[in-house]
Amino acid sequence: MYIVPEREIANLMTREAAFDAVEKVFAAMATGDAYNFPVVREAIGHEDALYGFKGGFDRAGLTLGLKAGGYWPNNLEKRDIINHQSTVFLFDPDTGKAKAMVGGNLLTALRTAAASSVSIKHLARKDAKTIGMIGAGHQATFQLRAALEQRDFEKVIGWNYHPEMLPNIEKIANEAGLPFEAVSLEEMQDADVIISITSAFAPSLMAEHVSPGTHLACMGTDTKGKQEVEAALLAKSRVFTDEVAQSISIGEAQHAVAEGLIKEADIAQIGAVINGTNPGRTSAEDITLFDGTGVGLQDLAVAASVVELAIKQGIAIEVDF
Amino acid sequence: MYIVPEREIANLMTREAAFDAVEKVFAAMATGDAYNFPVVREAIGHEDALYGFKGGFDRAGLTLGLKAGGYWPNNLEKRDIINHQSTVFLFDPDTGKAKAMVGGNLLTALRTAAASSVSIKHLARKDAKTIGMIGAGHQATFQLRAALEQRDFEKVIGWNYHPEMLPNIEKIANEAGLPFEAVSLEEMQDADVIISITSAFAPSLMAEHVSPGTHLACMGTDTKGKQEVEAALLAKSRVFTDEVAQSISIGEAQHAVAEGLIKEADIAQIGAVINGTNPGRTSAEDITLFDGTGVGLQDLAVAASVVELAIKQGIAIEVDF
Repeated sequence: MYIVPEREIANLMTREAAFDAVEKVFAAMATGDAYNFPVVREAIGHEDALYGFKGGFDRAGLTLGLKAGGYWPNNLEKRDIINHQSTVFLFDPDTGKAKAMVGGNLLTALRTAAASSVSIKHLARKDAKTIGMIGAGHQATFQLRAALEQRDFEKVIGWNYHPEMLPNIEKIANEAGLPFEAVSLEEMQDADVIISITSAFAPSLMAEHVSPGTHLACMGTDTKGKQEVEAALLAKSRVFTDEVAQSISIGEAQHAVAEGLIKEADIAQIGAVINGTNPGRTSAEDITLFDGTGVGLQDLAVAASVVELAIKQGIAIEVDF
Repeated sequence: MYIVPEREIANLMTREAAFDAVEKVFAAMATGDAYNFPVVREAIGHEDALYGFKGGFDRAGLTLGLKAGGYWPNNLEKRDIINHQSTVFLFDPDTGKAKAMVGGNLLTALRTAAASSVSIKHLARKDAKTIGMIGAGHQATFQLRAALEQRDFEKVIGWNYHPEMLPNIEKIANEAGLPFEAVSLEEMQDADVIISITSAFAPSLMAEHVSPGTHLACMGTDTKGKQEVEAALLAKSRVFTDEVAQSISIGEAQHAVAEGLIKEADIAQIGAVINGTNPGRTSAEDITLFDGTGVGLQDLAVAASVVELAIKQGIAIEVDF
């Protein structure tokens, strides 16, 4: 079996490879070739940690396995290591034998950024010029970097609950040669694409803050109770997601569904747009909204991709297991 | 992190170490210090395989992780490797980092055998002389070997649906210097301890086949629909189990509970007997019945034990992950 340690991922994995892997597995999910297993997520009562497993099987890509790990809120302060810790394990679907073990921390950021990037490719207007960021943490930098590759953006605008963090994303904009402007939530009306990536439990972006024709990727809500945008905004939008079951239970759509503003049947898989079985955006006036909840198959897809790269480049550690 | 390949387990792990690990974690489960996560079990639609995860956390032993793997029914015929394939992954509960990866095939057999052995230690009569085996497959040999260490047995009797397999367990009896006799199910009345370890979907051992004072370990039923013993036998017995939730849903007790012969509250954790908070056997006439369903914590416990041994003996492969 092969081992690819966390420290090797940054040099191995590219945004392009992550994008391709995630786009392909979203497509396989929509045809039924790939499916996610029930998620296990436990507050283990030690170090306030959340720990669990996200598994799945992609019959098309023959990728089987799980991401294990979670959130250890005291890691950074107590031990100077990051709070999110995860590892991906791949198995041979022909035999059940362990095939690879891959550091999952950077991959998680890359696969999450790839998801919103895939949604922008397939749902944003071709002539999108201004991208707006809600959130300015570590994840937001990954999101913005990947998003900028999808359209000829001319300007980045940003809002964050803690404005002192906005230089994080200003830096990414400037690296791409784009101007950055800190804005109010009302001024998000100027954006053609908006990515929200916060851990909020109450909406900041309201329906009135979003102009017709905008594509919105809601990437922060992955738990019951979290919410980034007003539920009414989903009622005004064509809503897409990675996995409908997660979208309505732990994703951004949970609130609009609970309030009866939209129904489960109003939410389409992004994979169907990729496959061409759903038209996606139907006019320059549509608001499209992607509810990115994060699925185990994304982790498996990018891990399989990085293992292939690591073997090719002679970096994978081979262990006779 | 440390890697202990499957091929090293046989030389490293002892029945004693497996017994101690399983006894300790059963005790921790009964005090609430250790708990199992929801089990994920999926028919993946490829090679007729069943694949899944059994995870848990032992706050007392600080053991966190999962066993991943399952059953690949074509392995032996197609590839000459065993059909049950599993791997145990341990995590550091203080940080969430991967800590060890351990071959889980032999460990699964050892931890299952340790469970019935623990039940014999705590529930069988001290003067038990005759042990009866229902089942004579690969697992049965592990069961018998471990059981023989718990009492001064003088004789082994056995029954199997395919009698031509009985020499498997006769060999183990003879290795221990004990006579073996193939018997009818009626003749199981002569046994003081009975272990059933089959994959049957209908009962073979009936209530009338079991004498007062017998201890019975039902080790084969781990799925809805499987059944080894008549439901009426549970109503006549003091019933113990590793985990009550599994016992009534996928264990031997599922049928007696479904038929209303016993209630969930009639089933006690074996850990409570180990801890002395449940009296266990109360007379020489009691029939005691242990419903061994198999929990993830057993796998984690024996894996943690073998990792410790492997590090001590310099056999663990250390990888800078």
